[in-house]
Amino acid sequence: MTAETILSAHDRIRSYIHRTPVLTNRTIDALAGAELHFKCENFQKIGAFKARGGLNAVLQLAPHELKSGVTTHSSGNHAQAIAYAAREVGAKAYIVMPRTAPQVKKDAVRGYGAEVIECEPTLDAREQGVAEVIARTGATMIHPFDDDRVIAGQATAAKELLEDATGNRPFNWLLAPVGGGGLLSGTALSAHYFAPGTRVLAGEPEGAADAILSFQSGRVESAPYINTIADGLLTTLSERTLAIIQQHVTDIKTVSDPEIIAAMRLIWERMKIIIEPSCAVPLAVVLKHKDLFAGQKVGIILTGGNVDLGKLAF
Amino acid sequence: MTAETILSAHDRIRSYIHRTPVLTNRTIDALAGAELHFKCENFQKIGAFKARGGLNAVLQLAPHELKSGVTTHSSGNHAQAIAYAAREVGAKAYIVMPRTAPQVKKDAVRGYGAEVIECEPTLDAREQGVAEVIARTGATMIHPFDDDRVIAGQATAAKELLEDATGNRPFNWLLAPVGGGGLLSGTALSAHYFAPGTRVLAGEPEGAADAILSFQSGRVESAPYINTIADGLLTTLSERTLAIIQQHVTDIKTVSDPEIIAAMRLIWERMKIIIEPSCAVPLAVVLKHKDLFAGQKVGIILTGGNVDLGKLAF
Repeated sequence: MTAETILSAHDRIRSYIHRTPVLTNRTIDALAGAELHFKCENFQKIGAFKARGGLNAVLQLAPHELKSGVTTHSSGNHAQAIAYAAREVGAKAYIVMPRTAPQVKKDAVRGYGAEVIECEPTLDAREQGVAEVIARTGATMIHPFDDDRVIAGQATAAKELLEDATGNRPFNWLLAPVGGGGLLSGTALSAHYFAPGTRVLAGEPEGAADAILSFQSGRVESAPYINTIADGLLTTLSERTLAIIQQHVTDIKTVSDPEIIAAMRLIWERMKIIIEPSCAVPLAVVLKHKDLFAGQKVGIILTGGNVDLGKLAF
Repeated sequence: MTAETILSAHDRIRSYIHRTPVLTNRTIDALAGAELHFKCENFQKIGAFKARGGLNAVLQLAPHELKSGVTTHSSGNHAQAIAYAAREVGAKAYIVMPRTAPQVKKDAVRGYGAEVIECEPTLDAREQGVAEVIARTGATMIHPFDDDRVIAGQATAAKELLEDATGNRPFNWLLAPVGGGGLLSGTALSAHYFAPGTRVLAGEPEGAADAILSFQSGRVESAPYINTIADGLLTTLSERTLAIIQQHVTDIKTVSDPEIIAAMRLIWERMKIIIEPSCAVPLAVVLKHKDLFAGQKVGIILTGGNVDLGKLAF
């Protein structure tokens, strides 16, 4: 993927997305001993950065493809992203969701006019659900991260952060959480092309520590166990995202759920904004490894704000 | 109070405060059937609009007054506002707080370098505490709302909202919650001077319904009973705020706690920002009286974001 791919993606999606603000907070800076700039994708359309990748993929479909609609399987933000993108281009969306997904998420997807197909909460059942949709409708599948169009879309968040942060000093670091690696790949590519010298680091929950293993071994690995509040980060990498991450990411650090919850609470209390547990992971890394970031300028992508207020961790 | 008083207040405090953003939200507009512009004082210094009034009062004290420090009694945002303002001018602050106030609030006040004096949780004990501080130190008392300097400071929030909201169409309404009436008085004066033709309406909890009675009778009345989640709005008006409110406010509407909680949840979920229950009151009024606001442009002052995340209503 070239710089031009990301620039084109940004031009393509610009009128469909919010240019989300970059916030700073003196209290958190003082606690971290660093200069933190938060890119607020919790304020993005559908409440998460995934609107970017979904739009960049859907907007590149040919008219005959759009006619048959789009499909994906997701229990979370990617479902809403594809439903939203499809609505914007007047296409049908068929979203396969595990029947155990929160009602509020199913309602949100239906709210964008998509058809929700419920399935058992296993990867097999989800993939079979999508296969059935495709057989029935001819819809095009949009993968949540194993797709260059999606990665280029996610890359635009870091691009905007680099453009909009205050001060002339370049970033020392950009930080993103890692699940399937779509956002992390895009962030790393944007840093590579638009801010050479800025290193990229990922945060991962201890209870979904597959990316750090894959990063070390060079193969897509599974997590030793899955048990974390950061439910947006459970997926493993793909060959595609792993290759980009190995080339352009400096390191991956893991944090525990108590560290994630403490960082999330700090952002809620001090910045007065609502973020998902997943996007507190990078701040938890900064607070755990203060030596790495002391006095440095750090960009953090806050990935989304879709939380179930009825089930809060504090 | 003249327009010039508010303009001067704004010039005086401008470099000490954030020019907080004005946010809009399509989903909430669709639910309300109106065009809502939210002035986000939850992002203000100390997490609430009260920084404005506190600063405007403290910044007008003479050097010999500042030398003896400032004092007030408050269990909430005014305590932090005075502590913050005093720190900014290098004065001592003595804050009398009920011993039952949340530890996090006492810590926040101490965090601004103020001395916290704990007292029994009654108005008598609070006033006696302040009297003792004054006898001991000669500090100047800054009342949370019964003070023209404080009212002029609070008025600057509405002034900014009028200046910053998108679109050329004038506001039909400005809405604020009412407790002691400092913010409401200031809002009404800003509308009167800077947006003639824009009406002002207040929201009040049913469980602290003193202002509506006072508005009707023309005398400062007490609430029939106190029982509401909107703990920033328990105070009665003063003669000063009642006079301004009677002259410049069109109406006061009450809402129940379930209505307040629903409006608060809507703002958290859809706007991804953290607001106090008190500042959900005006949106609750809009959703309850849709006929009043149908198709109109409405400005709502979101007063603050200082909530105890350990004790949420949902």
